Amino acid sequence: MPLLTEAAKGVYVIAVTPFLENGDVDWTSVDRMVDFYEEKGVTGLTILGQLGEAPKLTSEESKEIARRVIARAKVPVVVGVTAPGLAPMRELADSVMEMGAAGVMVAPPWTTKTDDQAYGFYASVGDALGKTPWVLQDYPLTTNVTIAPKVIDRIIKDVPTCVMLKHEDWPGLSKITALRASSEKGETRRISILCGNGGLFLPEEMARGADGAMTGFCYPEMMVGVVENYAKGDIDRAHDIFDAYLPLARYEQQQGIGLASRKYVLAKRGVISSGALRKPGASLSKLDIIDVERLLARQAKRLAEIGA
Amino acid sequence: MPLLTEAAKGVYVIAVTPFLENGDVDWTSVDRMVDFYEEKGVTGLTILGQLGEAPKLTSEESKEIARRVIARAKVPVVVGVTAPGLAPMRELADSVMEMGAAGVMVAPPWTTKTDDQAYGFYASVGDALGKTPWVLQDYPLTTNVTIAPKVIDRIIKDVPTCVMLKHEDWPGLSKITALRASSEKGETRRISILCGNGGLFLPEEMARGADGAMTGFCYPEMMVGVVENYAKGDIDRAHDIFDAYLPLARYEQQQGIGLASRKYVLAKRGVISSGALRKPGASLSKLDIIDVERLLARQAKRLAEIGA
Amino acid sequence: MPLLTEAAKGVYVIAVTPFLENGDVDWTSVDRMVDFYEEKGVTGLTILGQLGEAPKLTSEESKEIARRVIARAKVPVVVGVTAPGLAPMRELADSVMEMGAAGVMVAPPWTTKTDDQAYGFYASVGDALGKTPWVLQDYPLTTNVTIAPKVIDRIIKDVPTCVMLKHEDWPGLSKITALRASSEKGETRRISILCGNGGLFLPEEMARGADGAMTGFCYPEMMVGVVENYAKGDIDRAHDIFDAYLPLARYEQQQGIGLASRKYVLAKRGVISSGALRKPGASLSKLDIIDVERLLARQAKRLAEIGA
Amino acid sequence: MPLLTEAAKGVYVIAVTPFLENGDVDWTSVDRMVDFYEEKGVTGLTILGQLGEAPKLTSEESKEIARRVIARAKVPVVVGVTAPGLAPMRELADSVMEMGAAGVMVAPPWTTKTDDQAYGFYASVGDALGKTPWVLQDYPLTTNVTIAPKVIDRIIKDVPTCVMLKHEDWPGLSKITALRASSEKGETRRISILCGNGGLFLPEEMARGADGAMTGFCYPEMMVGVVENYAKGDIDRAHDIFDAYLPLARYEQQQGIGLASRKYVLAKRGVISSGALRKPGASLSKLDIIDVERLLARQAKRLAEIGA
Repeated sequence: MPLLTEAAKGVYVIAVTPFLENGDVDWTSVDRMVDFYEEKGVTGLTILGQLGEAPKLTSEESKEIARRVIARAKVPVVVGVTAPGLAPMRELADSVMEMGAAGVMVAPPWTTKTDDQAYGFYASVGDALGKTPWVLQDYPLTTNVTIAPKVIDRIIKDVPTCVMLKHEDWPGLSKITALRASSEKGETRRISILCGNGGLFLPEEMARGADGAMTGFCYPEMMVGVVENYAKGDIDRAHDIFDAYLPLARYEQQQGIGLASRKYVLAKRGVISSGALRKPGASLSKLDIIDVERLLARQAKRLAEIGA
Repeated sequence: MPLLTEAAKGVYVIAVTPFLENGDVDWTSVDRMVDFYEEKGVTGLTILGQLGEAPKLTSEESKEIARRVIARAKVPVVVGVTAPGLAPMRELADSVMEMGAAGVMVAPPWTTKTDDQAYGFYASVGDALGKTPWVLQDYPLTTNVTIAPKVIDRIIKDVPTCVMLKHEDWPGLSKITALRASSEKGETRRISILCGNGGLFLPEEMARGADGAMTGFCYPEMMVGVVENYAKGDIDRAHDIFDAYLPLARYEQQQGIGLASRKYVLAKRGVISSGALRKPGASLSKLDIIDVERLLARQAKRLAEIGA
Repeated sequence: MPLLTEAAKGVYVIAVTPFLENGDVDWTSVDRMVDFYEEKGVTGLTILGQLGEAPKLTSEESKEIARRVIARAKVPVVVGVTAPGLAPMRELADSVMEMGAAGVMVAPPWTTKTDDQAYGFYASVGDALGKTPWVLQDYPLTTNVTIAPKVIDRIIKDVPTCVMLKHEDWPGLSKITALRASSEKGETRRISILCGNGGLFLPEEMARGADGAMTGFCYPEMMVGVVENYAKGDIDRAHDIFDAYLPLARYEQQQGIGLASRKYVLAKRGVISSGALRKPGASLSKLDIIDVERLLARQAKRLAEIGA
Repeated sequence: MPLLTEAAKGVYVIAVTPFLENGDVDWTSVDRMVDFYEEKGVTGLTILGQLGEAPKLTSEESKEIARRVIARAKVPVVVGVTAPGLAPMRELADSVMEMGAAGVMVAPPWTTKTDDQAYGFYASVGDALGKTPWVLQDYPLTTNVTIAPKVIDRIIKDVPTCVMLKHEDWPGLSKITALRASSEKGETRRISILCGNGGLFLPEEMARGADGAMTGFCYPEMMVGVVENYAKGDIDRAHDIFDAYLPLARYEQQQGIGLASRKYVLAKRGVISSGALRKPGASLSKLDIIDVERLLARQAKRLAEIGA
């Protein structure tokens, strides 16, 4: 499989991990999910992330899921390998690259405080990972680590294997602007920037120079539609599509319950057999389901109105 | 002015504090703002909150703003009096109640960890405030303090002057459900629940039994429209109005820049003379303004389509 | 090997993980370290904890270290199995129990906020671990989770396999007092309480009813001396020993550099071949080494003065 | 009163705020406390800090305490003026400087994340405070803000009114080393560095180039003794004195209960009438008092042995 490069664009969807009601990995749904995402037009897959419930998997399961997804997918696969130490990070990265992954993704440890600590961490990640291309996951809402644009610029300059930023700062629009200004002035390489945060700011992020999305909203059609229309300059159409999906995307942004909502919809769409999260994990109440169903009905109506 | 009670309903808008470009309080805009909010149909005003830039005011300014707003307003005024100690909290509370405030609002200190600590804090607040009715501000995103529904129930039982919850947990829908279940079973008083978080979950919160909103989105028409239509059972209309404003409300939910966006729109609407935040505070870049203007234009179009 | 029970007493030393300068696990030093700790009179060993650099190990290395230590040790071995999900936790726990571990230790996830969440987490841990006896690791300085004594009492009541508290709250003396009051009144089982925090409050903790220490100060002689003298009622002798080691124990309490100091001394004492931490990890500067050497010289002099 | 300069040395003791049992400020004890600290040889006083219970005072009380202390003290007085906004900070700073304070002290807001944010905050503090000399309070354990040495160097270069660092990072010895290296190479001004953290690392901090202590341990004799002996090169004597007080200093380092212990001892020494903290605040249990009394007895014995 080709390796991830700075030229990556489009939608690298954050894949869920399907489980059976008893908590076992649901391998049949893994396959169906890969096919579903590809049918909806995604450019790549990102697996073993936080919202893929990766921390709840045993190390054997993690590798087995990576193997299965990589074997089936026609699009490039990025694998989350964040770990508290470089040794287990490298071990997982080496394994999945050998399986054919396109690259790996690394979030900083929550103990990172100063600019130099953030830079130092990612410099050592670059060393540890060798030639493997990797994604810098900037995820302050969970890691509580804020990485200034100038620090990202330093990393881009010094570590050639850093080819992508998963942008997830909030608010983060000015961060994209700052990074693009650096590369436009020729001060740094222009790397790929794909945006997270459930896609809640995707149109504005595209306007600032993002190359696409890396997030897992249960309708990848939204991200694909926004990114494609922005790419061809039809900004109003991009916003129309975005607005139609926004009420549900917002609902999915709730911590814990949001992932349960995402999996509920994916199960309803026939992608995965069960919407169950592995323990410990949230589940939807009857009232939550009423909320989601109302949002789905209204969304379908609105999509019909705009012809999407 | 009548005191705040458990029966409070509607929209208690979180008022901004208007400043001149030089950082002085803009007294003329204070008056105009009070009139504006009342014209748009709010039920009450909440001043000196976090998004009212209260921590940046001197103690004299805080009192002067309270005096000015209370004197002009025809609707009840709730005043934020959160402080690290009971003495300064009581001093401000006593001052504003004497001026005619309807009640005060108190958030917990960030050092609160366990259930008993949260209960103990609010029990001592009740003692310190005497007969003054007060609002429990549950604001985990900023205070990092999570208060379980059963703890709120204990406070409601033991502290009769606690008459309202400013609900701002995220996700928090199940919290409203739990609190309403307690009062419906007759286990606790039914207190007023008004919701924050920029109104981003207002329709769903109303469905769970909230009595309205306490938040500061720059179009109070949104909150008033959602709450009124929910109250009269026109749920689809409530959602239609909500959805039309949601793209902008979402933009306003960004930390720092969100308040700058709110004040920019209020200035554009002629409510306040300047959108400036007092230092230290964010300001909008040219690109941010382009974002907001696009959202305003699309919002106007959508409101026209739905006849709102 | 006998299983861990509520009757455990003494010193369960937190073992370091020895590495070679190149970052590989130093198996020869692992063996020598086990022997050293036993010669110094410890009652048990605790491995794969935070200060054993467990998060930097691959899952294979973790198991191999457990196997090696358990095979060699004559005293009971407790194994840290904290993980973000129940599945990987159970997998490691089952493996090490099969190897002959005496029990396992579990810290709460940092997302734990309310009393019920803490209780719920440990109830599910009890379910997941089956018959394996386990230690509740109460470690707020790192996890940022504070567990009230009444919550620990609930866990003790409902989960019979919880046999020990690793007490590491700071300040935490009143917590020991509260827990012992519960068991003395017959309200709960009396479980074992061993104390952490580098032993910095060990004499006072023994006075409140602790059963010993679970910490890794580079002179286990300190913990053994304090615990034994307290146990036989010679409180002044316990304090004399404690005070002689306190300046160095305090130095070891620094984050990051503290573990480097601990390993430096263990290397100097001939226990491990190298004081190196695995990456990412701190190392001592020349000035740090001067500090440690001065503290060692003064400590030796003071120990001689008190005849210890 | 002369203004604070980069040449400040010695012990600027963090003063407690004495309260009567009913919570009122105890003005008689305020006077006696000033005299006591001066008799014990301190070089300066620091008031209205976190451990002076400043956040629990009304703004009037804060000013009244500043007025009283400044009027009575023969040594320079530094006043804590940390506030969430520049306006209230400047207002208090201007007031106390007019009363005759030597300078003010400012901690960063907890929202500070990146190097540039920390720099930007202190640059704006310098602007806001005009000619008033000020102390940069680096207090990560409470503010959760870590300021890298290079950021402090930038502030020192650009803001001439920054004349002192209250050093309270933990571990922070390498920070002192880095800052002194910068000024020795002539890259920055050499400012005064006084150390906090209850004095727990004072001898090592002096060895790295600190100018003294700014902390509030109930025996200022300890800080004075360590600093004076270090200054004249009698390092062993400095450590002897330090070690004799360390067991009690360590006990005082507990959050909450530590301040209660400090005030208990000051009351016992006849400095303040009551050891009470203002609400909300901790108080000592009977068992805590037994601990403190034992430590005091052992400390007296050890001081006699070393002839101090």
